[in-house]
Amino acid sequence: MLIKKQLLLFFLLAISGIAFADNGYRLWLRYDRINNQQVAGKYNKQIQQLYISGNSATIQKAKQEFTNAIQGLLGKKISIVNKLTTDGTVIAGTVASNKILGALDPKELKNASDEAFYITTMQINNRSCILICGNSDIGVLYGIFHFLRLVNTGQDITKLDILSSPKIKYRLLNHWDNLNRTVERGYAGASIWDWHKLPDYIDQRYIDYARANASIGINGTVLTNVNANATILTRPYLDKVAALANVFRPYGIRVFLTARFSAPIEIGGLKTADPLDAAVQDWWKQKIKEIYSLIPDFGGFLIKANSEGQPGPQDYKRNHAQGANMFADALAPYQGIVLWRAFVYSQQSNDRFKQAYEEFKPLDGQFKPNVILQVKNGPIDFQPREPFSPLFGAMPHTPLAMEFQLTQEYLGQGTHLVFEAPLFKEALNADTYEKGKGSTVAKIVDGTVDNFSLTAMAGVSNIGSDINWTSHPFAQANWYALGRLAWDHNLSSDQIAEEWLEQTFSNDRSFVAVSKSIMLRSRETLVNYMTPLGLAHIMYNGHHYGPMPWGNTLGRPDWNPVYYHKADSAGIGFNRTVTGTNALEEYQQGASSSWADSNKCADEYLLWFHHVSWNHRMHSGKTLWNELCFRYNAGVDSIRKIQQQWNSLERFVDAERFIQVKQLLNIQVKEAVWWRNACLLYFQTFSKMPIPSVYEQPDKTLEYYKSLRFPYAPGN
Amino acid sequence: MLIKKQLLLFFLLAISGIAFADNGYRLWLRYDRINNQQVAGKYNKQIQQLYISGNSATIQKAKQEFTNAIQGLLGKKISIVNKLTTDGTVIAGTVASNKILGALDPKELKNASDEAFYITTMQINNRSCILICGNSDIGVLYGIFHFLRLVNTGQDITKLDILSSPKIKYRLLNHWDNLNRTVERGYAGASIWDWHKLPDYIDQRYIDYARANASIGINGTVLTNVNANATILTRPYLDKVAALANVFRPYGIRVFLTARFSAPIEIGGLKTADPLDAAVQDWWKQKIKEIYSLIPDFGGFLIKANSEGQPGPQDYKRNHAQGANMFADALAPYQGIVLWRAFVYSQQSNDRFKQAYEEFKPLDGQFKPNVILQVKNGPIDFQPREPFSPLFGAMPHTPLAMEFQLTQEYLGQGTHLVFEAPLFKEALNADTYEKGKGSTVAKIVDGTVDNFSLTAMAGVSNIGSDINWTSHPFAQANWYALGRLAWDHNLSSDQIAEEWLEQTFSNDRSFVAVSKSIMLRSRETLVNYMTPLGLAHIMYNGHHYGPMPWGNTLGRPDWNPVYYHKADSAGIGFNRTVTGTNALEEYQQGASSSWADSNKCADEYLLWFHHVSWNHRMHSGKTLWNELCFRYNAGVDSIRKIQQQWNSLERFVDAERFIQVKQLLNIQVKEAVWWRNACLLYFQTFSKMPIPSVYEQPDKTLEYYKSLRFPYAPGN
Repeated sequence: MLIKKQLLLFFLLAISGIAFADNGYRLWLRYDRINNQQVAGKYNKQIQQLYISGNSATIQKAKQEFTNAIQGLLGKKISIVNKLTTDGTVIAGTVASNKILGALDPKELKNASDEAFYITTMQINNRSCILICGNSDIGVLYGIFHFLRLVNTGQDITKLDILSSPKIKYRLLNHWDNLNRTVERGYAGASIWDWHKLPDYIDQRYIDYARANASIGINGTVLTNVNANATILTRPYLDKVAALANVFRPYGIRVFLTARFSAPIEIGGLKTADPLDAAVQDWWKQKIKEIYSLIPDFGGFLIKANSEGQPGPQDYKRNHAQGANMFADALAPYQGIVLWRAFVYSQQSNDRFKQAYEEFKPLDGQFKPNVILQVKNGPIDFQPREPFSPLFGAMPHTPLAMEFQLTQEYLGQGTHLVFEAPLFKEALNADTYEKGKGSTVAKIVDGTVDNFSLTAMAGVSNIGSDINWTSHPFAQANWYALGRLAWDHNLSSDQIAEEWLEQTFSNDRSFVAVSKSIMLRSRETLVNYMTPLGLAHIMYNGHHYGPMPWGNTLGRPDWNPVYYHKADSAGIGFNRTVTGTNALEEYQQGASSSWADSNKCADEYLLWFHHVSWNHRMHSGKTLWNELCFRYNAGVDSIRKIQQQWNSLERFVDAERFIQVKQLLNIQVKEAVWWRNACLLYFQTFSKMPIPSVYEQPDKTLEYYKSLRFPYAPGN
Repeated sequence: MLIKKQLLLFFLLAISGIAFADNGYRLWLRYDRINNQQVAGKYNKQIQQLYISGNSATIQKAKQEFTNAIQGLLGKKISIVNKLTTDGTVIAGTVASNKILGALDPKELKNASDEAFYITTMQINNRSCILICGNSDIGVLYGIFHFLRLVNTGQDITKLDILSSPKIKYRLLNHWDNLNRTVERGYAGASIWDWHKLPDYIDQRYIDYARANASIGINGTVLTNVNANATILTRPYLDKVAALANVFRPYGIRVFLTARFSAPIEIGGLKTADPLDAAVQDWWKQKIKEIYSLIPDFGGFLIKANSEGQPGPQDYKRNHAQGANMFADALAPYQGIVLWRAFVYSQQSNDRFKQAYEEFKPLDGQFKPNVILQVKNGPIDFQPREPFSPLFGAMPHTPLAMEFQLTQEYLGQGTHLVFEAPLFKEALNADTYEKGKGSTVAKIVDGTVDNFSLTAMAGVSNIGSDINWTSHPFAQANWYALGRLAWDHNLSSDQIAEEWLEQTFSNDRSFVAVSKSIMLRSRETLVNYMTPLGLAHIMYNGHHYGPMPWGNTLGRPDWNPVYYHKADSAGIGFNRTVTGTNALEEYQQGASSSWADSNKCADEYLLWFHHVSWNHRMHSGKTLWNELCFRYNAGVDSIRKIQQQWNSLERFVDAERFIQVKQLLNIQVKEAVWWRNACLLYFQTFSKMPIPSVYEQPDKTLEYYKSLRFPYAPGN
């Protein structure tokens, strides 16, 4: 009869698990029943009771998450106990809250952050236990999530000894969400913030958003667009923000807002927003006092000033430090911080590449201690590949936050499968040489090079109201990667991909091997069919969807694609050496030397720094033109191969997500061909050379590609 | 052991059914396991095999729906067979496709529509069978859906004898969806049409949308906003439309588009859009030919012309008939139709109420046979209560379509629970007296009064990208009601509410009794706290969210609330009798006579037709002012009672939807109080009378209510 029961079980599981489609809403927290009976059987013995201490809302959430997860994974209701009576007890809490953990008082946690946790296995009173000890209740929650990740990914939990402490203090999402629920550069539907129904209606999504973030260590969220709207600072909206903060608080997530510099005029009735004006300063002090009265753990402000039309201190002949410090002074009494964005390019310069450095380098040391400068990973704007921003390594007296873009503004938007961890890692691993070799961007950002404790990493959110949050099922992995890397930038892309796949799709080794390979190649694939060899910013104006290397009609030169590639009959690329704009001098010598010589510069960065002839000899031995043709075709070939590989995975994936990804890959293949054809045909008008016959030839004319218009491309 | 197995089953069902939240995505097609073992056991015997004939895509969908439903409801994989071998065989098909049904050749279907079906139970070769016979494959699909509805609602299926044939030919949703995915008057997120990803990406939602519509008999959908954009008629967009049409076709759903009258200029390069211009006529002929080459079953155009800034024939001194007939001629060869909207009020008149009649009545008989005039249920604009539009009963030579508004523009928008079937029924049951007593609006619309076969009923969609489609869980019921009433306007609100509740929530009798009572009272409740006694259009300008009876700042008088209520020191209401604008004369005598005398006019319509003094004696014996106070308070009391009742239903409803509705009712109560207070305080400035002390007194001032602003109210 046991066999019959098991068969019945299997049958019912088959119905409830595989037969139904998975809409992707649950992200990496699916907690579906573990199919491998051997694995499940072992876990069943090892996880029998939860002995969790503490009464905070955070501990309640940890308990809830644990019981829901075990119910899902092992199909059993876990007992919550308050003493140790059996093997398989998971003991969770802090040293202060739990007697057993207090007696143990793990030395590992002594010097770790407040948010750190320690997981270990141990015999206590002859019982096999799993201990999850946090330095705080949030640490306990993080530990619970980490433990569940181990189970979700089928790890052996017999012997555990894990100390985990975040390397970055502020691990943030930045939502570019407007109050009317449009999302700038959003490709996943409307904003998840339904401001109109707040504060009274708490969407289940808000709770699941907090769960997902906490599970990967994200501890802050900037709710509003950097192109800011002062209305968010009015009382009715602050009440709405407070309602969200209340939802997020137990999950260790603090809310931040974007502050519109001119708010004192727009909603305060003042005549000026001059940061040195006493009335302006007082207005912000009162406003910030009001915010903290509603949201005691409010995180602070993210501010885009004097950039792309946003007001700022320069409107009053003050500099960025004077602007930032006004906010910093008002926030300091509450331990709030200012994230001041370095994305500026309004001053005259011969190279947009150089402008953030030119504006901010002279201000190094002038910012108050609770200001952190938030710098995009590259000097331009989230291109498929950029060298690291020269501000990293140039601001020893100013904390620098890393800003990555999860939403794929320049990376195929809603329809291309691009795993961004390799891009993030490339930036983080770059060596600035600020204090000699090994001064990587990661070590600037985590504060170790310049000894800062105020550290931050932000990802511009790719989240929207689509059922699966991110539109492309694989885009969830970029949200996941941001959280994991902000916690620990030493994690490899490989490991992040693997654990995400296992939680999100399947533990099956064949599935993981193939799909991980797809993910790890995906970014280089896109670089090849979109902007190989150091090309950049040749997307359409405005919406940035599709190729427009011919674009030269906008008023500012540096808004036009031709500004970036500078193709002419002599060659292609932007000369940023001493014979050009000399942007290279913004880097430390150790960093710039690898790029300075066009014959030694890695192919990937060549056109970022050099204008070279169409016959320039590449490292492959090919001419530049032939290498360009090769790369564009390699990109197309690679995405076609990825498409084939995905199609081979049908048996491992629920029908809904399998078909979604399949359809999206079809679009991606079409668009890769479009990119290749449009770009090669256009650059050919300068190179005057044939596309080598070994490659697929464009099937449409350049005029055709130039004629395409996308008036309603999303996110614009 | 059987008992143990059953226990196990129950346990697993409990896990999979009740423990997990229901996000509402599945609408009324949930197909959750039937908990009542006695009922399930009976169905198990009665439904053992499906013998379905035909090979069309529609039959494939019917098969799929049936097997999925039975899998869900009874937990078993139904066998698909092609002969009759056991009891409990469901035989489905047409007379032509199935031998058994052919031999039976039910006379019931002879005179019924192509879409009709007949369901009967019968012994055939000593086997108990259930026969589902359609006049076409679509009829079979409708029959399958009807049969599943019987099972879903726990009906006894032992003896069935059901002939069902739609009373209306075109049963339509009208989406006011823009190409940028905003939705005019949409309160449920973004548009479900992700135009950017079409035609290559077919969202699962499109399929589920088609299933939901087919299940309630909706057979057409207008994809685009009546405030139209010519871009939808360009080839790239028509390819996207064709992709949707391909998804919908097997479900019997045809796509329609809105045609922008000036499209020949905007996308055709012509200098005019004059409907009598040969080049314009030819442009539309070619465009329509192109559409039908892509979408052979394209339904036709819905056109809003010379209304609220939309271009139209009057721009060229042509009338509506000349405009509509141009499209009709071009569509006729393909059996396409023109739905020409009667919602116009651009001409000068002393009463907006009268304008549609004034413009269209003279054109009666001048429209081509494939034109149908689409008329809103009331003369103004989807108010909580309106008298029926006087065009119904005034156009004996013109087919008239009914346009209802599902989206709750004036009915509390996304947050108020309002079941609209009673509103729809009120309009449909109204007697126009066109051909004497009994010439109800329903009989005008279904063609029986004037003998038209071209008949239509449309609902302005309340569907968006929110996970549960309609934002408010109960708003799903309005979509459902539209479909059911378009199929059969004789269904009662009670029956529609009951079957919707049973499918969407629970069959439990206690639950159904209470929640049905909530639904059936909800519309009158809203009328009372919003616009009692025949008040109308006193919402905020523009977004129409919240009360603004004081509004008098817009350029056109008839855009201002004060135009509609005409409150002054003498009294309140709009005199539409012979001593006023005499709008009443647009009705047949039989209809208008009940409203003409202010002392006999039903309270519900009083202020629609009469300006009466604050001391006017109402049927209750109260003065008008006291009755107004009574009604506003009755509305608030009623929604508070509904709130209590819902809270008593917690044990019957999954946690997610229970909490959603609970939170929304909290908002509704707050807003009902806001409406009552703001309106009574404002009207009190004219009546100069106290709010009787038996009623709750306003806790805020009129100035406070006037100060409220909602810059980002949705749907605007």
